[in-house]
Amino acid sequence: MFISFEGLDGSGKTTQVKLLSRRLREQGRDVVATREPGGTPLGERVRELLLAGKEMSAWAETALFAAARAELVELVVRPALERGADVICDRYVDSSLAYQGVARGLGVEPVLELNLAAVRGLLPDRTFVLLLDPSQALRRAGGGRDRIERETPEFRRDVDRGFRELAERFPERIVKVDAERPRREIAEFIHGALRQPS
Amino acid sequence: MFISFEGLDGSGKTTQVKLLSRRLREQGRDVVATREPGGTPLGERVRELLLAGKEMSAWAETALFAAARAELVELVVRPALERGADVICDRYVDSSLAYQGVARGLGVEPVLELNLAAVRGLLPDRTFVLLLDPSQALRRAGGGRDRIERETPEFRRDVDRGFRELAERFPERIVKVDAERPRREIAEFIHGALRQPS
Repeated sequence: MFISFEGLDGSGKTTQVKLLSRRLREQGRDVVATREPGGTPLGERVRELLLAGKEMSAWAETALFAAARAELVELVVRPALERGADVICDRYVDSSLAYQGVARGLGVEPVLELNLAAVRGLLPDRTFVLLLDPSQALRRAGGGRDRIERETPEFRRDVDRGFRELAERFPERIVKVDAERPRREIAEFIHGALRQPS
Repeated sequence: MFISFEGLDGSGKTTQVKLLSRRLREQGRDVVATREPGGTPLGERVRELLLAGKEMSAWAETALFAAARAELVELVVRPALERGADVICDRYVDSSLAYQGVARGLGVEPVLELNLAAVRGLLPDRTFVLLLDPSQALRRAGGGRDRIERETPEFRRDVDRGFRELAERFPERIVKVDAERPRREIAEFIHGALRQPS
Protein backbone atom coordinates (compact mmCIF):
# COMPACT_ATOMS: atom_id res chain seq x y z
CA MET A 1 0.00 0.00 0.00
CA PHE A 2 1.15 3.53 -0.82
CA ILE A 3 -0.03 6.10 1.75
CA SER A 4 0.66 9.84 1.86
CA PHE A 5 0.16 12.42 4.59
CA GLU A 6 -0.62 16.02 3.74
CA GLY A 7 -1.27 19.25 5.58
CA LEU A 8 0.34 22.50 6.68
CA ASP A 9 3.62 22.44 8.58
CA GLY A 10 2.57 22.08 12.21
CA SER A 11 -0.44 19.90 11.40
CA GLY A 12 1.20 16.82 12.93
CA LYS A 13 1.99 14.87 9.75
CA THR A 14 5.43 13.76 10.84
CA THR A 15 4.13 12.41 14.17
CA GLN A 16 1.38 10.46 12.42
CA VAL A 17 3.82 9.02 9.85
CA LYS A 18 5.91 7.71 12.77
CA LEU A 19 2.93 6.31 14.70
CA LEU A 20 1.49 4.54 11.66
CA SER A 21 4.88 3.17 10.57
CA ARG A 22 5.49 1.73 14.03
CA ARG A 23 2.04 0.19 14.20
CA LEU A 24 2.28 -1.46 10.78
CA ARG A 25 5.78 -2.77 11.63
CA GLU A 26 4.42 -4.24 14.87
CA GLN A 27 1.97 -6.15 12.67
CA GLY A 28 4.97 -7.60 10.86
CA ARG A 29 4.74 -5.45 7.75
CA ASP A 30 7.70 -4.12 5.78
CA VAL A 31 7.32 -0.31 5.93
CA VAL A 32 9.32 2.38 4.12
CA ALA A 33 8.70 5.89 5.48
CA THR A 34 10.06 8.85 3.57
CA ARG A 35 9.67 12.57 3.15
CA GLU A 36 9.48 15.18 0.43
CA PRO A 37 11.41 17.00 -0.88
CA GLY A 38 14.46 15.00 0.03
CA GLY A 39 14.69 11.29 0.66
CA THR A 40 17.35 10.93 -2.08
CA PRO A 41 20.73 12.65 -2.61
CA LEU A 42 19.33 14.63 -5.55
CA GLY A 43 16.20 15.42 -3.55
CA GLU A 44 18.25 16.86 -0.70
CA ARG A 45 20.10 19.14 -3.10
CA VAL A 46 16.84 20.24 -4.68
CA ARG A 47 15.44 20.80 -1.18
CA GLU A 48 18.31 23.19 -0.47
CA LEU A 49 17.58 25.10 -3.67
CA LEU A 50 13.88 25.27 -2.86
CA LEU A 51 14.11 26.33 0.75
CA ALA A 52 17.22 28.53 0.61
CA GLY A 53 15.31 31.75 0.45
CA LYS A 54 16.05 32.83 -3.12
CA GLU A 55 13.11 34.07 -5.13
CA MET A 56 12.00 31.90 -8.02
CA SER A 57 9.05 31.72 -10.35
CA ALA A 58 6.12 29.56 -9.30
CA TRP A 59 6.48 27.17 -12.25
CA ALA A 60 10.19 26.71 -11.60
CA GLU A 61 9.34 25.89 -7.98
CA THR A 62 6.70 23.41 -9.15
CA ALA A 63 9.07 21.68 -11.56
CA LEU A 64 11.81 21.46 -8.90
CA PHE A 65 9.43 19.75 -6.48
CA ALA A 66 8.43 17.41 -9.31
CA ALA A 67 12.10 16.60 -10.00
CA ALA A 68 12.69 15.62 -6.36
CA ARG A 69 9.47 13.61 -6.45
CA ALA A 70 10.39 11.81 -9.68
CA GLU A 71 13.71 10.78 -8.16
CA LEU A 72 12.06 9.59 -4.92
CA VAL A 73 9.53 7.52 -6.88
CA GLU A 74 12.19 5.95 -9.06
CA LEU A 75 14.76 5.19 -6.33
CA VAL A 76 12.59 4.56 -3.26
CA VAL A 77 8.83 4.31 -3.77
CA ARG A 78 8.51 2.01 -6.79
CA PRO A 79 11.23 -0.45 -5.69
CA ALA A 80 9.61 -0.70 -2.23
CA LEU A 81 6.11 -1.25 -3.64
CA GLU A 82 7.47 -3.84 -6.07
CA ARG A 83 8.98 -5.91 -3.29
CA GLY A 84 5.63 -5.75 -1.46
CA ALA A 85 6.47 -3.13 1.19
CA ASP A 86 4.12 -0.39 2.38
CA VAL A 87 5.32 3.13 1.59
CA ILE A 88 4.33 6.08 3.79
CA CYS A 89 5.23 9.47 2.39
CA ASP A 90 5.31 12.77 4.32
CA ARG A 91 3.95 15.01 1.53
CA TYR A 92 3.48 14.00 -2.11
CA VAL A 93 1.65 15.31 -5.21
CA ASP A 94 -1.21 16.93 -3.24
CA SER A 95 1.25 19.35 -1.61
CA SER A 96 2.08 20.71 -5.05
CA LEU A 97 -1.62 20.90 -5.91
CA ALA A 98 -2.41 22.86 -2.72
CA TYR A 99 0.69 25.10 -2.49
CA GLN A 100 1.44 25.79 -6.15
CA GLY A 101 -1.86 24.86 -7.84
CA VAL A 102 -4.21 26.65 -5.44
CA ALA A 103 -2.25 29.03 -3.18
CA ARG A 104 0.14 30.29 -5.89
CA GLY A 105 -2.71 30.25 -8.40
CA LEU A 106 -1.18 28.03 -11.11
CA GLY A 107 -4.29 25.84 -11.27
CA VAL A 108 -4.79 22.27 -10.04
CA GLU A 109 -5.05 20.73 -13.53
CA PRO A 110 -1.73 21.84 -15.08
CA VAL A 111 0.18 21.15 -11.85
CA LEU A 112 -1.38 17.68 -11.71
CA GLU A 113 -0.46 17.03 -15.36
CA LEU A 114 3.15 18.04 -14.82
CA ASN A 115 3.36 15.80 -11.76
CA LEU A 116 1.63 12.80 -13.31
CA ALA A 117 4.18 12.91 -16.14
CA ALA A 118 7.09 13.13 -13.68
CA VAL A 119 5.92 10.22 -11.48
CA ARG A 120 4.55 8.19 -14.39
CA GLY A 121 1.02 8.26 -13.02
CA LEU A 122 1.76 6.92 -9.54
CA LEU A 123 -0.74 8.27 -6.99
CA PRO A 124 -1.17 7.00 -3.41
CA ASP A 125 -3.80 4.39 -2.59
CA ARG A 126 -4.83 6.56 0.36
CA THR A 127 -4.01 10.12 1.39
CA PHE A 128 -4.65 11.56 4.85
CA VAL A 129 -5.05 15.34 4.94
CA LEU A 130 -4.51 16.72 8.44
CA LEU A 131 -6.71 19.80 8.81
CA LEU A 132 -6.58 22.42 11.50
CA ASP A 133 -6.86 26.16 11.84
CA PRO A 134 -3.91 27.67 9.88
CA SER A 135 -2.93 30.05 12.68
CA GLN A 136 -2.83 27.14 15.12
CA ALA A 137 -0.65 25.18 12.67
CA LEU A 138 1.73 28.13 12.57
CA ARG A 139 1.99 28.22 16.37
CA ARG A 140 2.61 24.49 16.54
CA ALA A 141 5.25 24.63 13.79
CA GLY A 142 7.22 27.15 15.88
CA GLY A 143 10.19 29.17 14.67
CA GLY A 144 12.95 28.47 12.16
CA ARG A 145 10.77 28.70 9.11
CA ASP A 146 12.05 28.29 5.56
CA ARG A 147 11.20 30.34 2.48
CA ILE A 148 7.86 28.66 1.92
CA GLU A 149 6.75 28.67 5.55
CA ARG A 150 7.65 32.36 5.87
CA GLU A 151 4.66 33.11 3.66
CA THR A 152 1.81 35.31 4.86
CA PRO A 153 -1.26 34.20 6.87
CA GLU A 154 -3.28 34.62 3.66
CA PHE A 155 -0.99 32.17 1.89
CA ARG A 156 -1.42 29.56 4.65
CA ARG A 157 -5.19 30.04 4.51
CA ASP A 158 -5.11 29.48 0.75
CA VAL A 159 -3.08 26.29 1.20
CA ASP A 160 -5.59 25.09 3.81
CA ARG A 161 -8.45 25.86 1.42
CA GLY A 162 -6.52 23.99 -1.29
CA PHE A 163 -6.28 20.84 0.80
CA ARG A 164 -10.00 21.01 1.61
CA GLU A 165 -10.87 21.41 -2.08
CA LEU A 166 -8.67 18.46 -3.01
CA ALA A 167 -10.47 16.28 -0.46
CA GLU A 168 -13.78 17.15 -2.14
CA ARG A 169 -12.33 16.52 -5.58
CA PHE A 170 -10.73 13.13 -4.88
CA PRO A 171 -13.04 11.63 -2.22
CA GLU A 172 -12.15 8.03 -3.12
CA ARG A 173 -8.49 8.65 -2.29
CA ILE A 174 -8.30 11.50 0.23
CA VAL A 175 -9.47 11.15 3.84
CA LYS A 176 -9.89 14.35 5.88
CA VAL A 177 -8.52 14.16 9.41
CA ASP A 178 -9.39 16.53 12.24
CA ALA A 179 -5.87 17.43 13.39
CA GLU A 180 -7.07 19.30 16.48
CA ARG A 181 -7.85 16.03 18.28
CA PRO A 182 -5.26 14.29 20.49
CA ARG A 183 -2.54 12.48 18.54
CA ARG A 184 -3.50 9.01 19.81
CA GLU A 185 -7.11 9.50 18.72
CA ILE A 186 -5.94 10.65 15.32
CA ALA A 187 -3.69 7.59 15.00
CA GLU A 188 -6.66 5.33 15.86
CA PHE A 189 -8.85 7.04 13.30
CA ILE A 190 -6.19 6.67 10.58
CA HIS A 191 -5.54 3.04 11.38
CA GLY A 192 -9.26 2.35 11.29
CA ALA A 193 -9.69 4.15 7.97
CA LEU A 194 -6.98 2.00 6.41
CA ARG A 195 -8.98 -1.13 7.16
CA GLN A 196 -12.01 0.24 5.31
CA PRO A 197 -12.17 -0.55 1.59
CA SER A 198 -11.75 2.63 -0.44
CA MET B 1 9.71 36.68 -32.69
CA PHE B 2 10.80 33.75 -30.56
CA ILE B 3 13.41 31.57 -32.28
CA SER B 4 15.17 28.48 -30.94
CA PHE B 5 18.20 26.57 -32.17
CA GLU B 6 18.51 22.85 -31.59
CA GLY B 7 20.99 20.10 -32.35
CA LEU B 8 23.77 18.00 -30.86
CA ASP B 9 26.67 19.70 -29.12
CA GLY B 10 29.13 20.42 -31.92
CA SER B 11 26.41 21.10 -34.49
CA GLY B 12 27.22 24.82 -34.56
CA LYS B 13 24.16 26.18 -32.71
CA THR B 14 26.08 28.71 -30.66
CA THR B 15 27.80 30.16 -33.74
CA GLN B 16 24.50 30.52 -35.56
CA VAL B 17 22.82 32.15 -32.55
CA LYS B 18 25.61 34.75 -32.58
CA LEU B 19 25.49 35.34 -36.33
CA LEU B 20 21.71 35.72 -36.39
CA SER B 21 21.67 37.98 -33.31
CA ARG B 22 24.28 40.27 -34.88
CA ARG B 23 22.44 40.41 -38.18
CA LEU B 24 19.09 41.25 -36.60
CA ARG B 25 20.72 43.90 -34.42
CA GLU B 26 22.33 45.44 -37.50
CA GLN B 27 18.79 45.76 -38.85
CA GLY B 28 17.96 47.78 -35.75
CA ARG B 29 16.06 45.08 -33.89
CA ASP B 30 16.13 44.54 -30.13
CA VAL B 31 17.52 40.99 -29.69
CA VAL B 32 17.84 38.91 -26.52
CA ALA B 33 20.00 35.81 -26.95
CA THR B 34 20.07 33.23 -24.18
CA ARG B 35 20.94 29.64 -23.50
CA GLU B 36 19.57 26.61 -21.70
CA PRO B 37 19.95 25.40 -19.03
CA GLY B 38 21.21 28.53 -17.38
CA GLY B 39 20.45 32.10 -18.33
CA THR B 40 19.11 32.83 -14.81
CA PRO B 41 20.67 32.41 -11.33
CA LEU B 42 18.39 29.45 -10.59
CA GLY B 43 19.08 28.02 -14.03
CA GLU B 44 22.82 28.12 -13.44
CA ARG B 45 22.43 26.21 -10.18
CA VAL B 46 20.18 23.66 -11.86
CA ARG B 47 22.75 23.41 -14.67
CA GLU B 48 25.40 22.47 -12.10
CA LEU B 49 23.13 19.77 -10.68
CA LEU B 50 22.36 18.43 -14.14
CA LEU B 51 25.86 18.35 -15.55
CA ALA B 52 27.84 17.50 -12.41
CA GLY B 53 28.15 13.85 -13.20
CA LYS B 54 25.85 12.37 -10.56
CA GLU B 55 23.44 9.71 -11.72
CA MET B 56 19.78 10.61 -11.64
CA SER B 57 16.55 9.17 -12.96
CA ALA B 58 15.42 10.26 -16.41
CA TRP B 59 12.23 11.89 -15.13
CA ALA B 60 14.09 13.83 -12.47
CA GLU B 61 16.47 15.06 -15.18
CA THR B 62 13.50 16.05 -17.34
CA ALA B 63 11.80 17.98 -14.53
CA LEU B 64 15.06 19.78 -13.63
CA PHE B 65 15.47 20.96 -17.22
CA ALA B 66 11.84 22.08 -17.14
CA ALA B 67 12.46 24.03 -13.91
CA ALA B 68 15.38 25.92 -15.46
CA ARG B 69 13.24 26.53 -18.56
CA ALA B 70 10.26 27.79 -16.55
CA GLU B 71 12.50 30.29 -14.78
CA LEU B 72 14.08 31.44 -18.04
CA VAL B 73 10.65 31.94 -19.63
CA GLU B 74 9.34 33.88 -16.65
CA LEU B 75 12.37 36.11 -16.06
CA VAL B 76 13.81 36.54 -19.55
CA VAL B 77 11.76 35.27 -22.50
CA ARG B 78 8.26 36.57 -21.73
CA PRO B 79 9.38 40.02 -20.57
CA ALA B 80 11.51 40.40 -23.72
CA LEU B 81 8.70 39.28 -26.05
CA GLU B 82 6.27 41.59 -24.25
CA ARG B 83 8.45 44.64 -24.86
CA GLY B 84 8.65 43.66 -28.54
CA ALA B 85 12.16 42.18 -28.62
CA ASP B 86 13.21 39.10 -30.58
CA VAL B 87 14.36 36.20 -28.41
CA ILE B 88 16.88 33.66 -29.68
CA CYS B 89 17.35 30.62 -27.48
CA ASP B 90 20.22 28.12 -27.67
CA ARG B 91 18.17 24.95 -26.87
CA TYR B 92 14.56 24.90 -25.66
CA VAL B 93 11.73 22.36 -25.32
CA ASP B 94 12.80 20.27 -28.34
CA SER B 95 16.05 19.37 -26.59
CA SER B 96 14.02 17.68 -23.85
CA LEU B 97 11.87 15.94 -26.46
CA ALA B 98 14.93 14.59 -28.31
CA TYR B 99 17.22 13.77 -25.35
CA GLN B 100 14.74 12.61 -22.73
CA GLY B 101 11.64 11.86 -24.81
CA VAL B 102 13.34 9.90 -27.61
CA ALA B 103 16.91 8.98 -26.59
CA ARG B 104 16.09 8.12 -22.95
CA GLY B 105 12.82 6.55 -24.05
CA LEU B 106 10.36 8.53 -21.91
CA GLY B 107 8.14 9.31 -24.90
CA VAL B 108 7.65 12.61 -26.72
CA GLU B 109 4.05 13.14 -25.52
CA PRO B 110 4.51 13.03 -21.72
CA VAL B 111 7.74 15.06 -21.91
CA LEU B 112 5.94 17.65 -24.04
CA GLU B 113 3.02 17.78 -21.57
CA LEU B 114 5.32 18.33 -18.61
CA ASN B 115 7.13 21.11 -20.47
CA LEU B 116 4.02 22.82 -21.79
CA ALA B 117 2.73 23.05 -18.22
CA ALA B 118 6.05 24.46 -16.98
CA VAL B 119 6.33 27.15 -19.70
CA ARG B 120 2.58 27.84 -19.83
CA GLY B 121 2.32 26.76 -23.46
CA LEU B 122 5.03 29.01 -24.88
CA LEU B 123 6.64 27.42 -27.96
CA PRO B 124 8.97 29.20 -30.42
CA ASP B 125 7.63 30.75 -33.60
CA ARG B 126 10.45 29.06 -35.49
CA THR B 127 12.98 26.39 -34.53
CA PHE B 128 16.14 25.60 -36.50
CA VAL B 129 17.45 22.06 -36.04
CA LEU B 130 21.10 21.79 -37.07
CA LEU B 131 21.67 18.29 -38.41
CA LEU B 132 24.94 16.56 -39.11
CA ASP B 133 26.49 13.16 -38.68
CA PRO B 134 26.62 12.46 -34.88
CA SER B 135 30.25 11.30 -34.96
CA GLN B 136 31.23 14.49 -36.76
CA ALA B 137 29.35 16.55 -34.14
CA LEU B 138 31.33 14.75 -31.46
CA ARG B 139 34.64 15.57 -33.15
CA ARG B 140 33.65 19.22 -33.53
CA ALA B 141 32.48 19.47 -29.91
CA GLY B 142 35.96 18.40 -28.80
CA GLY B 143 36.93 17.42 -25.25
CA GLY B 144 35.69 18.51 -21.84
CA ARG B 145 32.36 16.83 -22.08
CA ASP B 146 29.77 16.91 -19.30
CA ARG B 147 27.61 14.06 -18.02
CA ILE B 148 25.16 14.19 -20.88
CA GLU B 149 27.73 14.57 -23.63
CA ARG B 150 29.75 11.65 -22.22
CA GLU B 151 26.96 9.36 -23.40
CA THR B 152 27.62 6.59 -25.91
CA PRO B 153 27.62 6.91 -29.73
CA GLU B 154 24.28 5.06 -29.71
CA PHE B 155 22.82 7.73 -27.44
CA ARG B 156 23.96 10.54 -29.75
CA ARG B 157 22.51 8.67 -32.71
CA ASP B 158 19.19 8.37 -30.87
CA VAL B 159 19.20 12.11 -30.12
CA ASP B 160 19.92 12.83 -33.78
CA ARG B 161 17.04 10.53 -34.78
CA GLY B 162 14.87 12.35 -32.21
CA PHE B 163 15.55 15.75 -33.78
CA ARG B 164 14.78 14.38 -37.25
CA GLU B 165 11.50 12.87 -36.01
CA LEU B 166 10.51 16.16 -34.35
CA ALA B 167 11.09 18.01 -37.63
CA GLU B 168 8.68 15.64 -39.35
CA ARG B 169 6.17 15.99 -36.53
CA PHE B 170 6.14 19.79 -36.31
CA PRO B 171 6.85 20.87 -39.91
CA GLU B 172 5.11 24.24 -39.50
CA ARG B 173 7.54 25.23 -36.72
CA ILE B 174 10.78 23.29 -37.22
CA VAL B 175 13.18 23.95 -40.09
CA LYS B 176 15.88 21.37 -40.78
CA VAL B 177 19.33 22.82 -41.47
CA ASP B 178 22.22 20.98 -43.11
CA ALA B 179 24.93 21.74 -40.55
CA GLU B 180 27.73 20.29 -42.70
CA ARG B 181 27.69 23.35 -44.98
CA PRO B 182 29.94 26.38 -44.34
CA ARG B 183 28.74 28.58 -41.49
CA ARG B 184 28.12 31.64 -43.70
CA GLU B 185 25.93 29.60 -46.05
CA ILE B 186 23.99 28.26 -43.08
CA ALA B 187 23.50 31.77 -41.74
CA GLU B 188 22.16 32.90 -45.14
CA PHE B 189 19.77 29.97 -45.28
CA ILE B 190 18.46 30.70 -41.78
CA HIS B 191 18.03 34.39 -42.44
CA GLY B 192 16.17 33.61 -45.65
CA ALA B 193 13.91 31.08 -43.91
CA LEU B 194 12.92 33.70 -41.33
CA ARG B 195 11.57 35.95 -44.06
CA GLN B 196 9.30 33.17 -45.35
CA PRO B 197 5.83 33.04 -43.81
CA SER B 198 5.50 29.88 -41.68
